[in-house]
Amino acid sequence: MGLVVQKYGGSSVADAEGIKRVARRIVDTKKAGHEVVVVVSAMGDTTDELIDLAEQVSPFPAGRELDMLLTSGERISMALLAMAIKSLGHEAQSFTGSQAGVITDSVHNKARIIDVTPGRIRTALDQGNIAIVAGFQGVSLDSKDITTLGRGGSDTTAVALAAALHAEVCEIYTDVDGVFTADPRVVKKAQKIDEIGYEDMLELASSGSKVLLARCVEYARRYNMPIHVRSSFSGHVGTWVRNKPEGGEMEHAIISGVAHDTSEAKVTVVGVPDKPGEAARIFRAIADAEVNIDMVVQNVSAAATGLTDISFTAPKADGRKAIEALERAQGGIGFESLRYDDQIGKISLVGAGMRSNPGVTATFFEALSEAGVNIELISTSEIRISVVTRADDVNEAVRAVHTAFGLDSATDEAVVYGGTGR
Amino acid sequence: MGLVVQKYGGSSVADAEGIKRVARRIVDTKKAGHEVVVVVSAMGDTTDELIDLAEQVSPFPAGRELDMLLTSGERISMALLAMAIKSLGHEAQSFTGSQAGVITDSVHNKARIIDVTPGRIRTALDQGNIAIVAGFQGVSLDSKDITTLGRGGSDTTAVALAAALHAEVCEIYTDVDGVFTADPRVVKKAQKIDEIGYEDMLELASSGSKVLLARCVEYARRYNMPIHVRSSFSGHVGTWVRNKPEGGEMEHAIISGVAHDTSEAKVTVVGVPDKPGEAARIFRAIADAEVNIDMVVQNVSAAATGLTDISFTAPKADGRKAIEALERAQGGIGFESLRYDDQIGKISLVGAGMRSNPGVTATFFEALSEAGVNIELISTSEIRISVVTRADDVNEAVRAVHTAFGLDSATDEAVVYGGTGR
Repeated sequence: MGLVVQKYGGSSVADAEGIKRVARRIVDTKKAGHEVVVVVSAMGDTTDELIDLAEQVSPFPAGRELDMLLTSGERISMALLAMAIKSLGHEAQSFTGSQAGVITDSVHNKARIIDVTPGRIRTALDQGNIAIVAGFQGVSLDSKDITTLGRGGSDTTAVALAAALHAEVCEIYTDVDGVFTADPRVVKKAQKIDEIGYEDMLELASSGSKVLLARCVEYARRYNMPIHVRSSFSGHVGTWVRNKPEGGEMEHAIISGVAHDTSEAKVTVVGVPDKPGEAARIFRAIADAEVNIDMVVQNVSAAATGLTDISFTAPKADGRKAIEALERAQGGIGFESLRYDDQIGKISLVGAGMRSNPGVTATFFEALSEAGVNIELISTSEIRISVVTRADDVNEAVRAVHTAFGLDSATDEAVVYGGTGR
Repeated sequence: MGLVVQKYGGSSVADAEGIKRVARRIVDTKKAGHEVVVVVSAMGDTTDELIDLAEQVSPFPAGRELDMLLTSGERISMALLAMAIKSLGHEAQSFTGSQAGVITDSVHNKARIIDVTPGRIRTALDQGNIAIVAGFQGVSLDSKDITTLGRGGSDTTAVALAAALHAEVCEIYTDVDGVFTADPRVVKKAQKIDEIGYEDMLELASSGSKVLLARCVEYARRYNMPIHVRSSFSGHVGTWVRNKPEGGEMEHAIISGVAHDTSEAKVTVVGVPDKPGEAARIFRAIADAEVNIDMVVQNVSAAATGLTDISFTAPKADGRKAIEALERAQGGIGFESLRYDDQIGKISLVGAGMRSNPGVTATFFEALSEAGVNIELISTSEIRISVVTRADDVNEAVRAVHTAFGLDSATDEAVVYGGTGR
């Protein structure tokens, strides 16, 4: 039996009862003969409460100190979890990110892992211990300061440790049964996906599926580390994310699922002179403002005017920054005006072999048309088609596409528990 | 202007307002031209809440994990304090005990400091920063595990850092104006002591004064580090604890104050054979049970029986352990019976030159006699007389002794704010 890395999110360890339930599950895995490394997030709303305290003492909390503050959350949950395991008669030791050898760059609040040196974890395992590791945190190579990894940090910690320790699998425990063909809160007939490749999972994650973040899937793909996404509330098998075996179906489109996202806004730059370098100036201004953009669409220019429109989507939270950056740059770029629209939604269909199957695109647009959904932007990749619609149309659009591709289950089987982690 | 180490207890940083008030005081010290190192405890009741959580998940929380858990408390307060200072426009960096170089032995929950290597603190100061250090915690030399220092740990951290950094003074901020000639809650006319020597302060601390713990005073005496105990709520000068200058008064008794303690119980071992080795066997049994004893008194043996009684006091919390240990050892020791009494109190008079001034002892006993207080045990040292009385008589006894030695102020000036720290 090999080494298993398990990651439990904040909703799984929200209170003493949750911690004891998780402890029993960990002990069961150990009893089955595995070496076990556990990555844990902060309890329930701890992180939000700490951020609230920070804002009470300082309008702009310093990044280094915010990281010092927030990492106390995992310190609490991991120590409690180790105690709970020990009270079940098994040996456990907790380790901070720094102690576990999670080495990062120095970008506070969203550091990136640059190395993992889990010597102390290996020693603890060799001594028969279960190792509990704080998710979401590390120590910077240069300054030896405590860092946090930002959104999805705990999942990434788990995958990174699994890779460094050559684990058999990285199990990500959450409050749903796995990855679904669509959000079960929107599509009652959504089905749990039993197995999905890294690329499809990446596209789903980038398109709004909240279960795994793209960053963690990227890491797993690079190290070819299988991820098993499953519920900490049930014993069900969840979703395996791994390299799918080559097989006879490779020439057919295999639809993985439908994702949607209503967290973005659309910015349209109107009346851009259609000449080289204009788009570059626009997106340099956006990048300098540190706004992450998602879809980018440029319309065909009207021959008569020599002017074109460029639209892009970005997180609503960054909307104001994007508009301000473009307004400052308007003189240098020379566009006519800006339009901002945060009442949009994005629907994405993800699946392998899509581009070589023209029927997929046709079916997708037919389904939207029959549902009376108007399309505002279209963007495609090798394994994904995304469209932007009115926010109000998103749920209807997701259901229509889900049905059109035969993804509906025979029954309304989806079970959702709610809650969020980090 | 030299380096100042300031320590703030949990009641001083109980909420966001408290943290901001403390931040302003720290910035004022920095503005006055000092280098400033701040040691901070966990906010308000954080430690108790964490212990409560630990007990919910495990009946006997493991020491290593309890230390990991509890140290999150200081992590929160120190990060918030650094943020608050930065929002006042000054540079501050927070450091864990480990980062600050507080090296301890491996005894979890009550580790002792064995070295302080504050290289990172020195660097932070050289860069013009205010350094904020987590009190109460360190890292073990052998296992590199996180440790906590137990009761009085934050004060000891402050004095140890002050010594290692060759600070001018270690300021201990608390919720009272300083060290008083008696507990102001008991004696309305108690006066703040302006200056007191290490030895007298040690005796006061060992005799029940809660403001400073003996452990921290011991450390300060060893390194000759002046301590200034003062209020974080007022700007008043507090009590200086330092080597008093030699002077003309050395041949007179100088009474420092009256301390009392109702946290102990009295154990009497009745009918002990009066021969060599009996006391040693009794106190070996007690020591093996890890009970700390305070006063020890052996009565003169009755010649007719050859038997004597030995009484000692110990913390009430350890009373059951002491009794059980003695019962187990009864066969080997051969005493007749045990008496246990937890309705006692101890009153101590502390001052230099006491032994060579017989009048002091006489005045002390006369005051108790006039107040109608019966004395059950007596114990003296070079600079202290302690008596055990009924618990109900303690307050009256303290007031009587305080008055008899002319310690009463002209007015009821004592101001008490309440609250506890660690």
